Amino acid sequence: MHSPDELRSLVEIYLDDLALTPELHGQAESVRYALTVGGKRVRPVLCLATAEAAGSDPEQTLPAAASIELIHNFSLVHDDLPALDDDAVRRGNPSVWAQYGEAIAVLAGDALLGEAFRLALSYPTPAVGRELAQATLGMIGGQYLDITGTSPDEATLHELKTGCLFAASIAMALWVADVPEAEQTPWRAFGDELGPLFQIVDDILDGDGYVLSHGEDGARALADKAAERAQARLDGIDADTSVLAEIVSGLATRTA
Amino acid sequence: MHSPDELRSLVEIYLDDLALTPELHGQAESVRYALTVGGKRVRPVLCLATAEAAGSDPEQTLPAAASIELIHNFSLVHDDLPALDDDAVRRGNPSVWAQYGEAIAVLAGDALLGEAFRLALSYPTPAVGRELAQATLGMIGGQYLDITGTSPDEATLHELKTGCLFAASIAMALWVADVPEAEQTPWRAFGDELGPLFQIVDDILDGDGYVLSHGEDGARALADKAAERAQARLDGIDADTSVLAEIVSGLATRTA
Repeated sequence: MHSPDELRSLVEIYLDDLALTPELHGQAESVRYALTVGGKRVRPVLCLATAEAAGSDPEQTLPAAASIELIHNFSLVHDDLPALDDDAVRRGNPSVWAQYGEAIAVLAGDALLGEAFRLALSYPTPAVGRELAQATLGMIGGQYLDITGTSPDEATLHELKTGCLFAASIAMALWVADVPEAEQTPWRAFGDELGPLFQIVDDILDGDGYVLSHGEDGARALADKAAERAQARLDGIDADTSVLAEIVSGLATRTA
Repeated sequence: MHSPDELRSLVEIYLDDLALTPELHGQAESVRYALTVGGKRVRPVLCLATAEAAGSDPEQTLPAAASIELIHNFSLVHDDLPALDDDAVRRGNPSVWAQYGEAIAVLAGDALLGEAFRLALSYPTPAVGRELAQATLGMIGGQYLDITGTSPDEATLHELKTGCLFAASIAMALWVADVPEAEQTPWRAFGDELGPLFQIVDDILDGDGYVLSHGEDGARALADKAAERAQARLDGIDADTSVLAEIVSGLATRTA
C-alpha cells in the first residue's frame, strides 16, 4: 500500500509526463499550464487509494485518476473566465485567461474535458467514462445554479459543484479495480461523504459559506461530524482502508 | 434502407425528445436552444446511413449519431463567443451567448460536450466514445490554429476543423454496427473524403476559402473531384452503399 504522499507523487509524475493529443498543436501549452500550476490533487489521490484498497495497482488506475484531475481543472479554467467568476489569479499564478487570453482559455477548458474523456476511455469498460460524464454534467449544473443564484438550497449546490466529482473519484476506482456492481454500495456510501467534508473545511479556511451560515464553531462541528461519518463508512468496507482513513483525517484537519 | 430525408427526420425527432441530465437544472434550456435552432444534421445522417449500410439499425445508432451533432453544436456555441469569432447570429437566430449571455453560453458548450460523451458511452464498447474524443480534440486543435493563424497549411486546418468529425461520423457507425477493425479500412477511406468535400462546397457557397485561393471554377472542379473520390471509395465497400452515394451527391450539389 502506498501512502497518500507517495500517491500524490505518482499523480504529479503522471501529469508531468502526460502525452497530450498531438492534434492540439499549440493549444497544448495552455492545457499543460492549467495542469501544472499546482493543486492538492485530492481527487486523484482518493481514486488511487480506493483502487489500491480494492485490489488494483496505481499504474492501472492513473489514467482514471488523472482524468478526474483534468475535469477538476477544466472547471477551474472555465469558472475563472471574466464572464463567469472573473478570477485573474489561481493558486498564486495568473489564471489561464489572464495568461493566454480568453479565447485560448475557453479552448483550454474544452481540451481538458476532451483529454479527460480520452483517458477515461482507455479502459475496456465504458463504465469508467460513464461515471466521469455524469459527474461532469452535475458540476456544470452546479455552476449554473451558482452563477444564476437559482439553487433550491445550499446542499444541492455543493452536492453538484463539489460532491459529484469526489463521488466519481471513488466510483471510477471501483470499475478500474473490477469491483462487481453489487459490492460497490458501501464504497459509494463512503464517496458520498467526501464532498460535504471537503466543502465545509474549504469554507472554514476561506471564512465563507458554512462559516457564514453556522458560525466558525458550528462549521468546525459539522466538519468533524462529516469526517466521523466518512470514517464510519470505511468501517463498513471489507478491505484494508487504512490509507483512505489517513486521507479523510488529512481532509478534516487540513490548513490549506 | 431509409432515405437521407427519413434519416434526417429520425435525427430531429431523437434530438427533440432527448432527455438531458436532470442535474443540469436550468442550464438545459440553453442546451436545447443550441440543439434545436436548426442545422442540416449532415453528420448524424451520415452516421445513420453508414451504420445501416453496415447492417445496424437507426434505433441502435441514434445515440452515437446524436452525440456527433452535440459535439458539432458544442463547437459552434463556443466558437460564436465574443472572445472567439464574436458571432451574435447563428442560422438566422441569436447565437447562444447573444440569447443567454456569455456565462451561460460557456456552460452550454460544456454541457453539450458532456452530454455527447454520455450518449457515446451508452454502448457496451468504449470504442464509440474513443472516436468521439479523438475527433473533439482534433477540432479544438483546429480552432486554435484558426484563431491564432498558426496553421502550417490550409489542408491541416480543414482536416482538423471539419474533417475529424466527418471521419468520426463514419468510424463511430462502424463500431455501433460491430464491423471488425480489420474490415473498417475501406469505410474509413470513404470517411476521410467527406471533410474536404463539405468544406470546399461550403467555401463555394460562402465565396471564401477555396474560392479565394482557387477561383470559383477552380473550387467547383475541386469539389467535383472530391465527390468523385468519395464515390470511388464507396465502390470499394462490399455493401449496399446507395444511400451514402445519394448523400455524397447531395453534398456536392447543395445550395445551402
